[in-house]
Amino acid sequence: MSKYQALKQECYEANMQLNELNLVVYTFGNVSAVDRENGVFAIKPSGVPYEELKAEDIVIVDFDNNIIEGDKRPSSDTKTHAYLYKHWPNIGGVAHTHATYSVAWAQAQRDIPIFGTTHADHLTSDIPCAAPMADDLIEGNYEHNTGIQILDCFKEKNLSYEETEMVLLGNHGPFAWGKNAAKAVYNSKVLEVVAQMAYLTLQINPAAPRLKDSLIKKHYDRKHGKDAYYGQ
Amino acid sequence: MSKYQALKQECYEANMQLNELNLVVYTFGNVSAVDRENGVFAIKPSGVPYEELKAEDIVIVDFDNNIIEGDKRPSSDTKTHAYLYKHWPNIGGVAHTHATYSVAWAQAQRDIPIFGTTHADHLTSDIPCAAPMADDLIEGNYEHNTGIQILDCFKEKNLSYEETEMVLLGNHGPFAWGKNAAKAVYNSKVLEVVAQMAYLTLQINPAAPRLKDSLIKKHYDRKHGKDAYYGQ
Amino acid sequence: MSKYQALKQECYEANMQLNELNLVVYTFGNVSAVDRENGVFAIKPSGVPYEELKAEDIVIVDFDNNIIEGDKRPSSDTKTHAYLYKHWPNIGGVAHTHATYSVAWAQAQRDIPIFGTTHADHLTSDIPCAAPMADDLIEGNYEHNTGIQILDCFKEKNLSYEETEMVLLGNHGPFAWGKNAAKAVYNSKVLEVVAQMAYLTLQINPAAPRLKDSLIKKHYDRKHGKDAYYGQ
Amino acid sequence: MSKYQALKQECYEANMQLNELNLVVYTFGNVSAVDRENGVFAIKPSGVPYEELKAEDIVIVDFDNNIIEGDKRPSSDTKTHAYLYKHWPNIGGVAHTHATYSVAWAQAQRDIPIFGTTHADHLTSDIPCAAPMADDLIEGNYEHNTGIQILDCFKEKNLSYEETEMVLLGNHGPFAWGKNAAKAVYNSKVLEVVAQMAYLTLQINPAAPRLKDSLIKKHYDRKHGKDAYYGQ
Repeated sequence: MSKYQALKQECYEANMQLNELNLVVYTFGNVSAVDRENGVFAIKPSGVPYEELKAEDIVIVDFDNNIIEGDKRPSSDTKTHAYLYKHWPNIGGVAHTHATYSVAWAQAQRDIPIFGTTHADHLTSDIPCAAPMADDLIEGNYEHNTGIQILDCFKEKNLSYEETEMVLLGNHGPFAWGKNAAKAVYNSKVLEVVAQMAYLTLQINPAAPRLKDSLIKKHYDRKHGKDAYYGQ
Repeated sequence: MSKYQALKQECYEANMQLNELNLVVYTFGNVSAVDRENGVFAIKPSGVPYEELKAEDIVIVDFDNNIIEGDKRPSSDTKTHAYLYKHWPNIGGVAHTHATYSVAWAQAQRDIPIFGTTHADHLTSDIPCAAPMADDLIEGNYEHNTGIQILDCFKEKNLSYEETEMVLLGNHGPFAWGKNAAKAVYNSKVLEVVAQMAYLTLQINPAAPRLKDSLIKKHYDRKHGKDAYYGQ
Repeated sequence: MSKYQALKQECYEANMQLNELNLVVYTFGNVSAVDRENGVFAIKPSGVPYEELKAEDIVIVDFDNNIIEGDKRPSSDTKTHAYLYKHWPNIGGVAHTHATYSVAWAQAQRDIPIFGTTHADHLTSDIPCAAPMADDLIEGNYEHNTGIQILDCFKEKNLSYEETEMVLLGNHGPFAWGKNAAKAVYNSKVLEVVAQMAYLTLQINPAAPRLKDSLIKKHYDRKHGKDAYYGQ
Repeated sequence: MSKYQALKQECYEANMQLNELNLVVYTFGNVSAVDRENGVFAIKPSGVPYEELKAEDIVIVDFDNNIIEGDKRPSSDTKTHAYLYKHWPNIGGVAHTHATYSVAWAQAQRDIPIFGTTHADHLTSDIPCAAPMADDLIEGNYEHNTGIQILDCFKEKNLSYEETEMVLLGNHGPFAWGKNAAKAVYNSKVLEVVAQMAYLTLQINPAAPRLKDSLIKKHYDRKHGKDAYYGQ
């Protein structure tokens, strides 16, 4: 039996969760889960429909994109996942979707403004939208360069990947991450919900103001601060 | 067996109802039910997913926020519920959600205009949106002050909590209440439906007029007036 | 056993259909079915939730609003149904809902323009929106006068109730009818679908043109004309 | 047993799929599957509800619209399907729906701009919207002429039916096709998803730019190019 059985199972369940949360149609999404000790991650095989996916189909890859275990081709976005795991040591899972409202903001090439406490319960910044890549980066090692593009965006906007666990790729769609694969999926859902709320807010009031700093701080801290009192 | 068994069960069922009516994702909502005789209320524990929630997890709290029974931490919004119970003697249940359209109006910081009979079947005023709190109130006893903010809004707009059983908190989301927990959930759903209808109305006709007084009175009275003839 | 057993069953099934088609929340809708021979119709009791509704709860009423059979109070909109049956001899069922997009157009006080073949497959006119009633008619015999308002609207716009089987009541919502209760429900669903399509059309292109006459005629006639070739 | 048993089954399953993917209400859609060897195709019977549809109801028709097998009347859109099969030798299935967002773009008489990679994963052009037909073509052999209109649109815009597997008919709705009936249904769903995303994109940013050529090429080629690396 594979030493990565539990990792594959975690990855499989997170991928199926993506489907149950209505974040994907057909095969338009993928989730991975990392094993830091062994320097590998488990990821969905490319183009396999959710109704046919099985835990044993999950592919094990290392951070240099070598296939360690599995007889299927890994997700075409594997190199982006690998890049994020390699450079962000404290994440345990990554999820990519084409969820409707998230994609709409990405296609509009707009950061999602922080309009309310639903947003501030999860992060204190606008949800960043990385610019589309330069042509030579697209024509080169595209999925690897997608990872670079995300990190460049975070550096430029002075964001911490541990506080802002999601990003939009301009003209493409969302990536989200977290301490494990389930949290990455959770963040993908939060992003989609916040994206819809922000969309509707601007339709009702195009001049809607950003949430004020005191409310951002209050809501983020009561869930994530040192004196957090949300949850058990 | 707990003397609050029936109260916990009422509270549990109302919380599960919130989930079935698509008014919450994850743990973004909470409902409470009051026991006036004993001066306590039952409320959802903080951060517990609906699929794991059980009746025995429900926490019993008094109006000064002391935990009377239960080994879980109560909802982080408990003090707001307590404040409403303390100052509004005729309510039996309170519900708070982050339902999509309700939140969008709250983030837009706009009252929901009374555009039609679906709205007037339930209340005769616009659905009020309370302004975001002053910074010192946010940084202080936030959830307690949220209760104050709601009551101040009702005083300023000259509204009766017995006629207008719902409010939007600017940049946050809706609170609703009623004679019991089930009615508070019902009002949360009505608010969400009316919020969506009002949103669409303004998209079709930005100059759509408010419902005229005669229709407001007719529809409210046929359901709630002294000669009401709606229902059994 | 009641001589109206079959009529009640038809009415019951049509009401439940309303619920399954997502045209109502809670008790915001009602359907009736007529028995022309006996000069009566069956209608949903007022305020009874769909999950509790049973065929034996259905009330039998005559065209002058006398209860002929049943121990429940009939729908508060009964007089409107009665008025339509009395004046439109060729209809067999009437449905009233508060379906979201239909209500939005009614609240916007706008006719729904005929933009496409989905619309023209069912009727050749814009879907009319009757103006809100005069105050004295609202304060008087309201539901009876609602029927008058609908017929006045059809007379003024020179519409045939046999070709245009639906109407919006300004600030209220839709009524639809047809040869029987099931057809009235079908028309309610078609209206909601067409209302959503028209809404989206105007958002994409505020200058979208009405469907041209040749296409209106072609699509209506292939389903309803003397040489119709749609269906079995 | 019919020699077309397998063809009917393929067609039946694709039609049922249309329903499960929420692309149709009532009978507003139809799918066909071709048998090139025998010069016939299988198509849904006209006006039969999905809940009643059975594989043996499927009608077999040749490219000149003669019924070869079946005791039901074929879809009223049969001549359009026949025209496409006759002139496009490499397609195996055709689907027509009245899906909401696709119809909205058709009613708005607008091509759907290529805004993102979800679109470019499937085709490199905007999704074309064919102009409504001239009056004499509508009044003549309408459904046959619909086929002509589609091919004229592709010729005028210099599109390949093998790369662009979908079209909107102005004021009507979408047609999609592919190597078989299942792929035609898949393309109908992709079109609906892309139509919704493009709609939302323009609401958020009316000046949203088209996807740049390098990204169009990259995404299309990684799924469909000679060095494609998507899927198994």
